[in-house]
Amino acid sequence: MNEIKLFCPATIANVSCGFDVLGLCLESVGDEMTITKTAEKGIRITEIIGAELPLETEKNVAGVAALSLIEALQPDCGFEISITKKIKAGSGIGSSAASAAGAVFGINQLLGNPLTNTELVYYAMQGEKLASGSAHADNVAPALLGGFTLVRSYDPLDVIAIKAPNELYATVIHPQIELKTKDARSVLRENISLKKATIQCGNIAGLISGLYTNDYDLIGRSLHDELVEPVRSILIPKFAELKAAAKEAGALGGGISGSGPSVFALSKGRENAEATAKAMKAVLEPIGVPFEVHVSGINAEGMKILHV
Amino acid sequence: MNEIKLFCPATIANVSCGFDVLGLCLESVGDEMTITKTAEKGIRITEIIGAELPLETEKNVAGVAALSLIEALQPDCGFEISITKKIKAGSGIGSSAASAAGAVFGINQLLGNPLTNTELVYYAMQGEKLASGSAHADNVAPALLGGFTLVRSYDPLDVIAIKAPNELYATVIHPQIELKTKDARSVLRENISLKKATIQCGNIAGLISGLYTNDYDLIGRSLHDELVEPVRSILIPKFAELKAAAKEAGALGGGISGSGPSVFALSKGRENAEATAKAMKAVLEPIGVPFEVHVSGINAEGMKILHV
Repeated sequence: MNEIKLFCPATIANVSCGFDVLGLCLESVGDEMTITKTAEKGIRITEIIGAELPLETEKNVAGVAALSLIEALQPDCGFEISITKKIKAGSGIGSSAASAAGAVFGINQLLGNPLTNTELVYYAMQGEKLASGSAHADNVAPALLGGFTLVRSYDPLDVIAIKAPNELYATVIHPQIELKTKDARSVLRENISLKKATIQCGNIAGLISGLYTNDYDLIGRSLHDELVEPVRSILIPKFAELKAAAKEAGALGGGISGSGPSVFALSKGRENAEATAKAMKAVLEPIGVPFEVHVSGINAEGMKILHV
Repeated sequence: MNEIKLFCPATIANVSCGFDVLGLCLESVGDEMTITKTAEKGIRITEIIGAELPLETEKNVAGVAALSLIEALQPDCGFEISITKKIKAGSGIGSSAASAAGAVFGINQLLGNPLTNTELVYYAMQGEKLASGSAHADNVAPALLGGFTLVRSYDPLDVIAIKAPNELYATVIHPQIELKTKDARSVLRENISLKKATIQCGNIAGLISGLYTNDYDLIGRSLHDELVEPVRSILIPKFAELKAAAKEAGALGGGISGSGPSVFALSKGRENAEATAKAMKAVLEPIGVPFEVHVSGINAEGMKILHV
């Protein structure tokens, strides 16, 4: 196998009550990436279509992730990476993670899978470190493993894959304002009350329980974020109205996707997810902020090999 | 049915990573309680064997819980309660909760079960409020529902029952020093770092995931408490040594039971739990603090009716 073409899925990190530890993988939103083995060693980004991103390997998230992987594996060859970006940079649905995770997944495949997808999370995180200043795993883990993922611990890294209930759908609306992950992190408070932490623990535990028992109502009741949403939502136009409209339209609940500005909702069944999309659109249309809306199932497998 | 005799189980609250929201129910440690219907309305505590506790209804946790229940149900009769305490007060394994939960469970049974066990949690919490100044549910919920329980939310009250893996056993060592729940709460810091809250969220989510998937190793890896154990453990003699000895002896992990001073460990299989008990004893024996040790399975049903 000398060449592999991938679908690199978008992801929703945090999932409301799971700040920095939870993420989920989307089915129908993602980039494409082609990776080709070369005799010359090293990593070269040959082409990026659909976004203005640096081609220099050391400045590109896919490049940096790939470099960290080949440093570990020391293959006797190099790789060329061509990326067609469909996930908008800065949208909050894991654009950088899709590239970082895609690069390490594809290279690992071309080398005959010396590492498991769970082991690849660490290398993909190095790309995230370049993108946001923090080597977080809550987008790259679901992009690599599919479904929901829990980063139980960062030190040591311990990632748990959790299957999503079959009828769970996501709606994502992306108000196209610029909101850098670095800025969204800078508004966070360093300290929080023990009381709020306890509420957050109850909700994340409730969400995990709901995922294992297919209890959609419990999933909905657990989608509250005490820690981050209260401060970050100020940066997102019409956040409260979007969330309220989603629930009114039948969504189970929702919140900020990753560090925003995208807002997500989860619904039982595609019909509710579509109704939620319509209701969210109706909130943003009058204010003139351009936006994109996605309705997607939860992607159970993560990265998809389109052809080899 | 005019009289009921109950086994009122001891419980482990917090379970390390689940401060104020998680609890589990013990199989072989508990009080006995007899409740008798009377023509005279109201609640009377007729006898308490094995502990010096107030007989005045309004000063007794079972009495206060029972009063809150009959205020809601307005039955055309009253109840006499006789309690044989086997769980030591102030031990940290839910002594007050066993009494509060037993009283409401028994009265509800004698009235033909107008409420579900989940609905009874609220009334049992009123007894806890008397005991510790805080109407917490993390002992009364597992005492009423068995297995593990999650208090997803206090407002509104939302309690989720989670089945424990079959081979999970608890070891509890109770160093017999006095440590009031009120005092153990007063050492807590009001504010914590967002980073610690995030670590706690990862661990409680990991524990819940481990319970649903019978992943004993994951349960063990998740038994870390970032929020409370670092400050509370100072009040418990040889805490670090007890925890280390338990892990050395084969336990999955452990921590402070409730607000202490009891220390618990969870193990896979009774044999490991017994070895853990032996190792924990060996830590306390040389220092001359009297102690009690319990090894118990997880009680899947909660309150047990001994006879009616």
